[in-house]
Order: sequence, then structure tokens, then C-alpha cells
Amino acid sequence: MQIAILLYDRFTALDAIGPYETLGLIPDAEVVFVAERPGVHRSDKGSLNLVAEAGLGDVTAPDVLVVPGGPGQAALMTDGPLHDWIRAVDAGTTWTTSVCTGSLILAAAGLLRGRRATSHWLALDLLPTYGAEPTGERVVFDGKYVTAAGVSSGIDMGLTLAGRIAGDLVAQTIQLGIEYDPQPPYDAGSPDKAPADVVAALREHGNAILAGKRWRDAGTEGN
Amino acid sequence: MQIAILLYDRFTALDAIGPYETLGLIPDAEVVFVAERPGVHRSDKGSLNLVAEAGLGDVTAPDVLVVPGGPGQAALMTDGPLHDWIRAVDAGTTWTTSVCTGSLILAAAGLLRGRRATSHWLALDLLPTYGAEPTGERVVFDGKYVTAAGVSSGIDMGLTLAGRIAGDLVAQTIQLGIEYDPQPPYDAGSPDKAPADVVAALREHGNAILAGKRWRDAGTEGN
Repeated sequence: MQIAILLYDRFTALDAIGPYETLGLIPDAEVVFVAERPGVHRSDKGSLNLVAEAGLGDVTAPDVLVVPGGPGQAALMTDGPLHDWIRAVDAGTTWTTSVCTGSLILAAAGLLRGRRATSHWLALDLLPTYGAEPTGERVVFDGKYVTAAGVSSGIDMGLTLAGRIAGDLVAQTIQLGIEYDPQPPYDAGSPDKAPADVVAALREHGNAILAGKRWRDAGTEGN
Repeated sequence: MQIAILLYDRFTALDAIGPYETLGLIPDAEVVFVAERPGVHRSDKGSLNLVAEAGLGDVTAPDVLVVPGGPGQAALMTDGPLHDWIRAVDAGTTWTTSVCTGSLILAAAGLLRGRRATSHWLALDLLPTYGAEPTGERVVFDGKYVTAAGVSSGIDMGLTLAGRIAGDLVAQTIQLGIEYDPQPPYDAGSPDKAPADVVAALREHGNAILAGKRWRDAGTEGN
């Protein structure tokens, strides 16, 4: 089973690594990092460099496609070779998935029309532009399309999908292997739980904060 | 504030990325990936390549040191230049931290003697060999030494430490930014919660499974 994880400049690392550390542990899974430009891709915060060993032409029939999000998503919303590739491989996938704003790329490529989907909570209201129906769920299945909410939700998506692909026992083995027994020190992980000023700060300067820009600069850089 | 994340061959990617996506979002944080051999380092499953842009000599005074775990940890347990570097930078850190079996490297370098610490649940019983006192907690503070349990626990460690460094409001903003509102599809993330056969499978073939080797080969390859 080949799992293709798309890379691009200014992706969010955890968006890609959550599915990698879950789906990638399914027996017989083979993960390939693929990009329009093979080689090193720099994450949103500028300090992490991940290598895409394959170009689009090297990956023609993945069983699972994973499209992560990140600030770089905004540059990938127009039709062209990447969208062509996404549509071409989607025709043969068993599962086509995204994390965070990766769903906007799938949607812009025309794959989520009329489908329920999710994204980072700050980006949910962009989905209808592309004909998708936003939901507040953390992991959304609509046929073979699986979209996950912001950044860390890719772990929950990966485990849920691992269960569908390989059964509960395998998924539980993966969960115990990565010791995923979450104990966040705060209960601020969704906009309906976080303090109002925290929600407001992210609404105002979300992209700058998520890209790891110095927060004091966020106001002037805007988003 | 400089955060140095150590890389080495056969590290576990999420061990490094959990702290990166949390501590790395603290205002004024600067993350550097550092390794004894600068350049590309291959993760445990062989398909992910992360770049260490700095060598040990380039990073002499990080404020925070993060040592991830992974199967490659076993090759880093003997004294030498890496342990010398760990001890040297530890003398100046505000926080010295680890995720998963990274704590064994800190312990082997002599930094956890007489201290409470944790590690991946499969490795906990190795800590006393190096004079550390194992605990079953997910994130353990003992003075400036912060150790986290297996793989995914680095997210909880990063958020907890972000709160200590920058205050609750910043840590909550990071949590909401990465939408860390965990909803695992199973409750199998610790050995006291997972089904007995899942625990047994990992006890028998843990390293092979975690390294992403084909599970059918795990029995013959051993661990």
C-alpha cells in the first residue's frame, strides 16, 4: 500500500507527520514524500527542512494521498500541473485525505464539490467557495474523501483511517506504539473551548502566529 | 530564545516535531536542528528525511535542548563527542528536555542521575541503569530537566513547557493554533488501557513495529 504525502514550501510539519506516524505504521505501508519540485522543502516556520524524494511523475498510483496544510497552501490554489496530478492520482486512490488547509487544495482541484469536509477552524468558511460543505467535526469521512481539522488532527485522522484500512487491532497497536494518550495541560484546543482573547488573537494574527513569525511583528505583517 | 533539536539517523519524526510545533511557536523562539553530522537524517521508518542545518560546533548555547527518541538511540549510548556536547550545552540551558527514548541518551550522558524521569513505556525499565528514577507520568519535570513519554507525548510536553516559559495565554494560543483538541478513535494509548494482546504484540515486536518494518517480518527480525 503506497501512501503519498505531498510537500511544498511553507507546509506545516505536523500536518504531514501526524499521518506519517500513524498511517505509515500500517503493515506493508510504504510512504513516499512527493512534490512538484523534488528536493528540500522548508516548513512554514523556516527552520525545518524535509526532503521530497519523488516528483509528481514518480508517483502515479498511490493508494492513499495525504495533502497537508500550511501557509504555503495559498500559492497552490490555481489550476496547473499540481491540480492535474492531484486529480489524476485521485482517480485511482482508495483514500484521498487532507489535514488542515490541505482540504482547500483538494477543494480547489475540484474534488470536494458537494462533499462534507473540514479544515483548520480559521479556514472553514473558505470551503463553500469551492462547493464543499464545512463541518465542525475533527475528522470527516465523505466517501473516500477524508479531511481533518487543524494541524494536530492529522493524528486522529491517521488512527481512524488506519482502523478502516487495517482493523481496530492494528490501529490500537499503532496508538499504543506512539503512546497517544493525550493529556493537554489546557483545554483550549478548539475555538469554543479556548478563552475569548486567545480566539481573538488568532483570528487577528493567525497566519503570522502559525508561521512562527515573531508575534510582536504579527500586527504589522497582518494576515 | 534558541531551541536546539537534536537529529540522528533512525530518529522518530513525531518525537522531534511535537516540540517543534509547540515550543517553536513561542514568541521569539528560534529553532535549530542540530546533529553530529550536519545534513540529511533518515527517520526510523526510512522514508522521511529531515535536514540538520547545524553541526554540534555551530550550536554552543541553546536555551532549550530537545533530544528525541527512536531506534537510533541505541547507537548513541556510549561516551564520545555527542555526550560531551550534550553535557556542555546542558551547562547553559534553561531547560534540557527529551521525548521518548531520548531520555536514555540524556541519562547515558549522566544528566539524570538521582532524577525522576520518563521514557517510552517499553523503555522505562532501562532508566535505573543510568541512575534515573522512572515514573509513569506523561510529562515529568525535575528541576530544569523535562522528560516526556513515548512519541506523541512531545506535544503535551511542548505545551506544558511553553506555559512555563511564556505563560498560560501563549501556550493556549499555541494549542488553539495547532487545534490540539485530541479525539483519538480508541482509548489504547497507554499499556494499562490498551487490550492485552496489543500490549503483548508491542512487548514482543515493539522496535520492529515502531521502526515501520513489515509486521510479518517482525518476528524473524526480532527486536
